[in-house]
Amino acid sequence: MAGSSFGNILRITTWGESHGPALGVVVDGCPAGLALEPDDIQAYLNRRRPGQTKISTPRKEADTVEILSGIFEGHTTGTPIAMMVRNTSQHSADYGEIANCYRPGHADYTFDAKYGFRDYRGGGRSSGRETTGRVAAGAIAAKLLKEFGIELTVYTKSIGPFSIDMNKFDRQAILTTPTCMPDTDASAKAEAYLADCMRNYDSAGGVIECLVDGVPAGLGDPVFEKLDANLSKAVMSIGAVKAVEIGDGIAVADRHGSQNNDAFRMEAGRVIKTSNHAGGILGGISDGSQIILRAYVKPTPSIFSPQQTVNKQGENTELSIKGRHDPIIVPRAVVVVESMAALTIADALLMNAGARLDNLKKIYDR
Amino acid sequence: MAGSSFGNILRITTWGESHGPALGVVVDGCPAGLALEPDDIQAYLNRRRPGQTKISTPRKEADTVEILSGIFEGHTTGTPIAMMVRNTSQHSADYGEIANCYRPGHADYTFDAKYGFRDYRGGGRSSGRETTGRVAAGAIAAKLLKEFGIELTVYTKSIGPFSIDMNKFDRQAILTTPTCMPDTDASAKAEAYLADCMRNYDSAGGVIECLVDGVPAGLGDPVFEKLDANLSKAVMSIGAVKAVEIGDGIAVADRHGSQNNDAFRMEAGRVIKTSNHAGGILGGISDGSQIILRAYVKPTPSIFSPQQTVNKQGENTELSIKGRHDPIIVPRAVVVVESMAALTIADALLMNAGARLDNLKKIYDR
Amino acid sequence: MAGSSFGNILRITTWGESHGPALGVVVDGCPAGLALEPDDIQAYLNRRRPGQTKISTPRKEADTVEILSGIFEGHTTGTPIAMMVRNTSQHSADYGEIANCYRPGHADYTFDAKYGFRDYRGGGRSSGRETTGRVAAGAIAAKLLKEFGIELTVYTKSIGPFSIDMNKFDRQAILTTPTCMPDTDASAKAEAYLADCMRNYDSAGGVIECLVDGVPAGLGDPVFEKLDANLSKAVMSIGAVKAVEIGDGIAVADRHGSQNNDAFRMEAGRVIKTSNHAGGILGGISDGSQIILRAYVKPTPSIFSPQQTVNKQGENTELSIKGRHDPIIVPRAVVVVESMAALTIADALLMNAGARLDNLKKIYDR
Amino acid sequence: MAGSSFGNILRITTWGESHGPALGVVVDGCPAGLALEPDDIQAYLNRRRPGQTKISTPRKEADTVEILSGIFEGHTTGTPIAMMVRNTSQHSADYGEIANCYRPGHADYTFDAKYGFRDYRGGGRSSGRETTGRVAAGAIAAKLLKEFGIELTVYTKSIGPFSIDMNKFDRQAILTTPTCMPDTDASAKAEAYLADCMRNYDSAGGVIECLVDGVPAGLGDPVFEKLDANLSKAVMSIGAVKAVEIGDGIAVADRHGSQNNDAFRMEAGRVIKTSNHAGGILGGISDGSQIILRAYVKPTPSIFSPQQTVNKQGENTELSIKGRHDPIIVPRAVVVVESMAALTIADALLMNAGARLDNLKKIYDR
Repeated sequence: MAGSSFGNILRITTWGESHGPALGVVVDGCPAGLALEPDDIQAYLNRRRPGQTKISTPRKEADTVEILSGIFEGHTTGTPIAMMVRNTSQHSADYGEIANCYRPGHADYTFDAKYGFRDYRGGGRSSGRETTGRVAAGAIAAKLLKEFGIELTVYTKSIGPFSIDMNKFDRQAILTTPTCMPDTDASAKAEAYLADCMRNYDSAGGVIECLVDGVPAGLGDPVFEKLDANLSKAVMSIGAVKAVEIGDGIAVADRHGSQNNDAFRMEAGRVIKTSNHAGGILGGISDGSQIILRAYVKPTPSIFSPQQTVNKQGENTELSIKGRHDPIIVPRAVVVVESMAALTIADALLMNAGARLDNLKKIYDR
Repeated sequence: MAGSSFGNILRITTWGESHGPALGVVVDGCPAGLALEPDDIQAYLNRRRPGQTKISTPRKEADTVEILSGIFEGHTTGTPIAMMVRNTSQHSADYGEIANCYRPGHADYTFDAKYGFRDYRGGGRSSGRETTGRVAAGAIAAKLLKEFGIELTVYTKSIGPFSIDMNKFDRQAILTTPTCMPDTDASAKAEAYLADCMRNYDSAGGVIECLVDGVPAGLGDPVFEKLDANLSKAVMSIGAVKAVEIGDGIAVADRHGSQNNDAFRMEAGRVIKTSNHAGGILGGISDGSQIILRAYVKPTPSIFSPQQTVNKQGENTELSIKGRHDPIIVPRAVVVVESMAALTIADALLMNAGARLDNLKKIYDR
Repeated sequence: MAGSSFGNILRITTWGESHGPALGVVVDGCPAGLALEPDDIQAYLNRRRPGQTKISTPRKEADTVEILSGIFEGHTTGTPIAMMVRNTSQHSADYGEIANCYRPGHADYTFDAKYGFRDYRGGGRSSGRETTGRVAAGAIAAKLLKEFGIELTVYTKSIGPFSIDMNKFDRQAILTTPTCMPDTDASAKAEAYLADCMRNYDSAGGVIECLVDGVPAGLGDPVFEKLDANLSKAVMSIGAVKAVEIGDGIAVADRHGSQNNDAFRMEAGRVIKTSNHAGGILGGISDGSQIILRAYVKPTPSIFSPQQTVNKQGENTELSIKGRHDPIIVPRAVVVVESMAALTIADALLMNAGARLDNLKKIYDR
Repeated sequence: MAGSSFGNILRITTWGESHGPALGVVVDGCPAGLALEPDDIQAYLNRRRPGQTKISTPRKEADTVEILSGIFEGHTTGTPIAMMVRNTSQHSADYGEIANCYRPGHADYTFDAKYGFRDYRGGGRSSGRETTGRVAAGAIAAKLLKEFGIELTVYTKSIGPFSIDMNKFDRQAILTTPTCMPDTDASAKAEAYLADCMRNYDSAGGVIECLVDGVPAGLGDPVFEKLDANLSKAVMSIGAVKAVEIGDGIAVADRHGSQNNDAFRMEAGRVIKTSNHAGGILGGISDGSQIILRAYVKPTPSIFSPQQTVNKQGENTELSIKGRHDPIIVPRAVVVVESMAALTIADALLMNAGARLDNLKKIYDR
């Protein structure tokens, strides 16, 4: 089954393995006329790139994007935008042992069960490097959304037991702290916690939060293509994410309706809500208030302490993972969550274009 | 945008409004040769039907299914199975006031923002009655899965502050308690709690848990069509669900890798895991252990206490909802979660059929 | 595989068998706000209905449409429009013999090969009655296109050796001649020819032509979703169609480029073409001139003379078809071609809405 | 709209412009375990490559394929196979004039109408070079089909007035004659005819025939995903194709049912047909006999004689095309038709895998 595509009208197809020649993405369905240059993409890829801080793998990967099609004279042409990143830092030797044995918490066993064999080098297709293509595509989606006044703010909300304090929210810090936390105090604590993890040959998990401002009311479809349903799929399709919340999320299960409903009021001639428990989506359709989403990310499964497992021959064995691994997935996944959310909302924007006869008549002006 | 379909190979399309003539579903892509009769469907619809207990709306709806196509001599033919339920208990008069005014927590405002107007009677397309079609289809998916030894167990895990005790798990109670809890003690407490809610003109939320046994390793695709991603979309597409967890879900964010990884071992010649934090899915692909999923459901937004809102004319107003409404969505949504999970897994089973050349050769025996 | 859906944004799903309880269609993705009532649909279904002339089967089927969802206060709501026609004239007894034996030219054998068994009554799902749903949906698409000044003219171009004379073109005659020919002289000759066929227990084929005026330049996508590619699929998906031409069609193979190219000129401030060999589509995209398409339809395979065939047991046998059958498929297929063409062009209109950033900004006016 | 993908389960996405850095394709959904190496692909690309004969453009393009993902240890892994061909022979200067003016018979005008502007160099996305990706993908599909005993034979049937004589059919000649005709006599005449065309600054059209042997009965779906409908779309999506026939094609319109029906008989324990007017497909499903398809290709629209046209400013003008152009599209399109047919049939093979419960049980052996 062709399962490497995402989106309906704006549709991306990613390809590539961790240790193959390259990874990439084809972005199809982007409207013509969007100003776009390689730096727009590279800025996003740089946020995903490893080897930049003490808490990410020391692997150095340039991850320089090459745009291969779909741009002419600095603008999208409406035809597919193909982008590629060459793999340059491949230490296949590091992965010799895992060729034959299933790493706990990884997809090694399930790949073999599904396909009969796998490209085991660096996790192959199930490597976090697959998200390179998502991020390159997400950069385009985010730029497209900006044309409509839609802006995403995505950051690390917590790492292990350390959470940010929204009163200390510092947007700039998302890009400058190694944790991608918008609170330098919380980040310092989280960094110390991660240093501990590394000393113990262990890893940690955390929470990513995504806020989207400027989304007009009306995006999303009322049944299966609900905006929150598609956001959930988008974010759950990122490896290591094990839970997704919209708005108040799990907290709603303990509430009464009188506490959880958001009242409508008029303000400056516009419909607003006096609270936002719903996280900006009602009945699957955006309501014009801020969209709020959280992703819960498991700890990196690659840890250096020895683990019990089995091999391809069906024998019990013990595995000590070597190589270079992040002690936490969260900071580098922040831009991946942003990318997937941007792609989902951009697709919803396009899907909604034909929802009303009167809107269509604005385009086909006759 | 056509947004009323779900699934890739086994694809359903639901249609119908709360107060229209009927609601229904077309199930396309079901393999030929499955024994199926109306009772298989009706048994599922009966679990969704209102008017059966003190904690569901007193509306009486027969919800008798009519199978219109796709079955011949008691078996599926491989062609689309159309099913329909006539609406019989319509009190449109009850909904006069909401024609012009937006109920908090409902999709009234977002429908108008999207489409310019809406069928306001009983919530129209965004009514919980839309799930009738999902449940009729889910009954087929569940029966198909049984042919492959796959079985779903879905129940209410908690209502407000009252949770089940897994040590008292009583499978039969799912079908007999008004709460769909598999623990009669917890159910009794939850019923009292709900009676309180009703006295206060208020409503409550809760949690639904879904366990799937017998899923072979290998279902799901490794990138966007991950089994957990599709399950999340499936469940988040049910109105009122605000969070989804797979396996240990949000708890993983606080863990270390050494705590969260599930070790592999051989047992009776099969690969098993010694724990199941992952909830049966690794890298988006089933690993052969139990699949575990939880959905967090908000309290019914229709409450009888007066609420602040606005009307279509853009004026502030106050609304007191009348009519007949469940004080809680959870018990009736249990079978909806089961249906959506069954549809997702059945689709994954079909999608996986062509994953390997050697498997295809078993079919095209040449 | 779910194969009963057609279209991307405007998507229809048909269901039903010839002798099942009913046939129908779900039309999803129709924009909100289109005025629509049952008569709009019934007018199209009446053109498809049998039993109306000497050259169609004497079966009397009311084919009265019931609209089950998606319309409110006389307008489409943007949600799925479900429509159904009950089967009322079922003579299942007529089909006893074919339960066990494969009619030449029909899908009996291929259905059994694919699914292992089939609903043999009246051809089941492969009956021409399946097109009921297409025509009900096509009526909506045609009405939507009219809002944009797009109009279809579809008619019988030839029956056996008798073709219409374009100089005698009489649009009204399409609806009044039993042949659906827009030329009463040609129709009279064709009727005599068909009377002969019937006397000889035989059947005839013919050609349907479809002209579409008012299509704006720019519809269709440049690669796989070419407008002519989708029109070809649409028309070839009608049983009995064995060839499709766009514009001059097969004639282009004998031409020189200097003969076949259509020159562009300015006329009244608009780009026009001085000829239209291309049939209104260049590079898969509409060019603003008339779209021209022809479908070649085989003779009805159900003939009354005895035929050699095999049965389910794998034995040679002879079959004499009984029952009630049209001596020609063409006249009743005219409205089916019109419906499929309308659906394809309406879908292209919607798909094109997001092709340009400047057009999208007209909708999201910010 | 994302329109650069083709196929349901085996799905390809092509990208790239004539004069961009590269062109390519992503093949998603290919089963794991197929032996595949670059030479399998290169052999097909070489058949499409220009500059090889007197009757193709003298442009020299190496068109060397680079496989970027999806292959491991010489076999497909089940993950997307990305392939790329670098553009090396770009004479952008040749295309200066057409930047501002619409070539008759090309997509220049319609691209501008759709997208507002276009990459005019060499036709950009609407160039025949787009088919590079289709052919690379088609090579994989053809190799997959061979595993199931399915083989395609595709060749030039006629060029202008010169047709092959089936009695002189020489399979080898398809690969050795510059016309791709399987009849060296007819080819010699066609070559002389084309030399004449070139002397007259003109071009020619022709017909391509595609035969597929070994297709098992049962492929294709009975309604919209009919095998012939998908083949028609596949072939019509190739630029310059203006008509498609299945089996006897247009000839059926003049026939009686008694002439056109193919009788079934038993032969060596298998169901066979005593004739094959239907071209191997009944009711949209393969019947086990040879599949027959013909594509009618228009003459190359790029001719060197001056032509009337308009420019972007909306002024009448005259255009004399320069550059390097094939006098005929047919021979180089033969392998494109083969590729699109192979992709369609391979997809049908995969789509059919889940059609029957008993077949699925062979895979999920429980």
